[in-house]
Amino acid sequence: MPVITLLTDFGTQDAYVGIMKGVILTINPQATIVDITHGIPPQDLHKAAIELANACGYFPAETVHLAVVDPGVGGTRAAVALRKNRHTFLAPDNGILSLLLATDEPAEVFKIVNDDYFLKPVSRTFHGRDVFAPAGAHLSLGLPLRHLGPRLDPATLMLLDLSKARLESDGRLSGAVASVDRFGNLTTNFDWALVKTHYPAAEGYMLTFTIGRHRVHGLSPSYESRPPGTPVALVGSRGSFEIAVNRGSAARHFAAEAGTPITLWIEDHNKG
Amino acid sequence: MPVITLLTDFGTQDAYVGIMKGVILTINPQATIVDITHGIPPQDLHKAAIELANACGYFPAETVHLAVVDPGVGGTRAAVALRKNRHTFLAPDNGILSLLLATDEPAEVFKIVNDDYFLKPVSRTFHGRDVFAPAGAHLSLGLPLRHLGPRLDPATLMLLDLSKARLESDGRLSGAVASVDRFGNLTTNFDWALVKTHYPAAEGYMLTFTIGRHRVHGLSPSYESRPPGTPVALVGSRGSFEIAVNRGSAARHFAAEAGTPITLWIEDHNKG
Amino acid sequence: MPVITLLTDFGTQDAYVGIMKGVILTINPQATIVDITHGIPPQDLHKAAIELANACGYFPAETVHLAVVDPGVGGTRAAVALRKNRHTFLAPDNGILSLLLATDEPAEVFKIVNDDYFLKPVSRTFHGRDVFAPAGAHLSLGLPLRHLGPRLDPATLMLLDLSKARLESDGRLSGAVASVDRFGNLTTNFDWALVKTHYPAAEGYMLTFTIGRHRVHGLSPSYESRPPGTPVALVGSRGSFEIAVNRGSAARHFAAEAGTPITLWIEDHNKG
Repeated sequence: MPVITLLTDFGTQDAYVGIMKGVILTINPQATIVDITHGIPPQDLHKAAIELANACGYFPAETVHLAVVDPGVGGTRAAVALRKNRHTFLAPDNGILSLLLATDEPAEVFKIVNDDYFLKPVSRTFHGRDVFAPAGAHLSLGLPLRHLGPRLDPATLMLLDLSKARLESDGRLSGAVASVDRFGNLTTNFDWALVKTHYPAAEGYMLTFTIGRHRVHGLSPSYESRPPGTPVALVGSRGSFEIAVNRGSAARHFAAEAGTPITLWIEDHNKG
Repeated sequence: MPVITLLTDFGTQDAYVGIMKGVILTINPQATIVDITHGIPPQDLHKAAIELANACGYFPAETVHLAVVDPGVGGTRAAVALRKNRHTFLAPDNGILSLLLATDEPAEVFKIVNDDYFLKPVSRTFHGRDVFAPAGAHLSLGLPLRHLGPRLDPATLMLLDLSKARLESDGRLSGAVASVDRFGNLTTNFDWALVKTHYPAAEGYMLTFTIGRHRVHGLSPSYESRPPGTPVALVGSRGSFEIAVNRGSAARHFAAEAGTPITLWIEDHNKG
Repeated sequence: MPVITLLTDFGTQDAYVGIMKGVILTINPQATIVDITHGIPPQDLHKAAIELANACGYFPAETVHLAVVDPGVGGTRAAVALRKNRHTFLAPDNGILSLLLATDEPAEVFKIVNDDYFLKPVSRTFHGRDVFAPAGAHLSLGLPLRHLGPRLDPATLMLLDLSKARLESDGRLSGAVASVDRFGNLTTNFDWALVKTHYPAAEGYMLTFTIGRHRVHGLSPSYESRPPGTPVALVGSRGSFEIAVNRGSAARHFAAEAGTPITLWIEDHNKG
């Protein structure tokens, strides 16, 4: 039962996603197809890159992931297949794979050009149906990746400018909201590894987050550590720091969205 | 092909649901996973309890249901497994299981504490991924429930205050809208069993529903029994009385939502 | 692994769709169930007919399609099963099948009346659960169609008034937006076949689309053929002409929706 995942910005009010599944099941009736999400805002490559990197590691080895947020469909952008950590990713070469490429494990990349594995005629507007779904289905049947097309140097793939938090001269870390979820929780681009990189000698850490004119002091173990309606900072499920409001929405509370600047002040609470 | 259902308030624009499915399929590749809904409004335990009770009976015996609306995640609330009517329910102990516990069939309950069946490290913010999905997947492989943790007395579980319709001194039943669906149909907390309990001697029943200043007279066999745009009361698909507007929205027509009071007057139309 | 698809206007915030899947899996645990979409606007038979016709051909032969947009549920409308092109379609007889019936291939139709294959008691408000899901599941197990009920003449089924583009006396084709997708792309009811029918002698075609006071000249090969924010006309993934805005929304740009008139002027660009 090979697993094929789908991550797109197609939404679910049209038949696009259903059509991709029909194409896959026609080629491989044994495939188990899982939606990661189709709710990526139209053409939002940053959100797509983050959700894909966040989700893929929870799937079984040999899963084939189709990531189709593709504003350049039918144009000059290539379609590529990335093999890494025993997972395979098919996507347009537009930056969706940026976070996967950023890690150290060995990667193989192939350009998808062999139309033996496409649905023909190939349209200029829907490669999810005509290229990614059929190619992914053939891979799930055991087709070797190299049959899709020529090998590419992974270093040639497009990368998004995914801003990272950085150390300012006054000692604070300046970062941003990485993404906002349905609950209004704010994932940030700070985590413990970053804090410890910049403050390796601290014996204990007191963190203060600033968003606009608001401050959140300290890390709490869970949402419920603070009273309902109160902001709370904690380690989120992705490992990065998260700002939430217990039983409320931090996005509303702070009028924050993806990209909203966040400042992190760090003090050594065992000193002085 | 064991069936595992998911009911959450996670929405589908983030990867949370996909991640839970990845965790399940990693443990049990044979599982058939079905979404009941992920559109429960954030942290709305009443709606979750109603939809879960409404849906679960239509699934095959031995289905494992994961119900994860969990505002207290990471805090002191327990995670529990309920066995009833040959179905198994995994949920936080926060009232989601109230309607299932209210019926008479024998129930077994276990506290979920054995981290042999968790995804580690267990986060404080996403037990859908770290506790419920892996524990449910192991159960779907045949793990006996008692391996999850110690037995609990079902009477100790949290119950929601799910208000029931009641008989007033003037003879009317006062109740409320239980839930509103996508079509704007209003499910109520009245049904024939309730009417007959309070009016056992009637030879025929004439029902009149009052919502705000509006009245709906009589029960109709189907939506189409009244002209388009006209309110209609009927027995809904859950067995309770439902107020609808043929080809329209009763929620808009009556400016009603879950909890809006409804009064039901009953006359014996074969008398006097 | 028989495939059963679902296309409804039920949305996904209620449990209706999950319930239909539970009913199907109780009867046929081997079924592979695929959502085409549940986001048809409530009771929008035109959109349902278009999406069903658009999607069904991408599924394997012997797929059973359940199309349940059913404002007349519980009333006098029949439930029918259509067999065509080795696919089977179960739907209310209200026009959803119009586009499938419009093509030339031989069709068989049966009225669904045999309650041996229904979930009982049959409600008057939810035949998706009580009629279509169980009947479809039995068909997916190999039940012959004729067991559902008597044969009907396909010509007696209800047809929607799906307006087609037509040639005006001044030579233009007058048509309309057929549907709008999540990206704001406008599918039209024009295509090359229509242009060539009306202008068979042309040696080359220069197309100009008019929507309100806006014009779009020429057909482009892909969205990216025009700068971001610029309207573009092209052949869409369904084969019909589509109006889009590169990296934007044509629906917003032109304030257009399904039914908005579009005029198509055709000149022979190889002539004088």
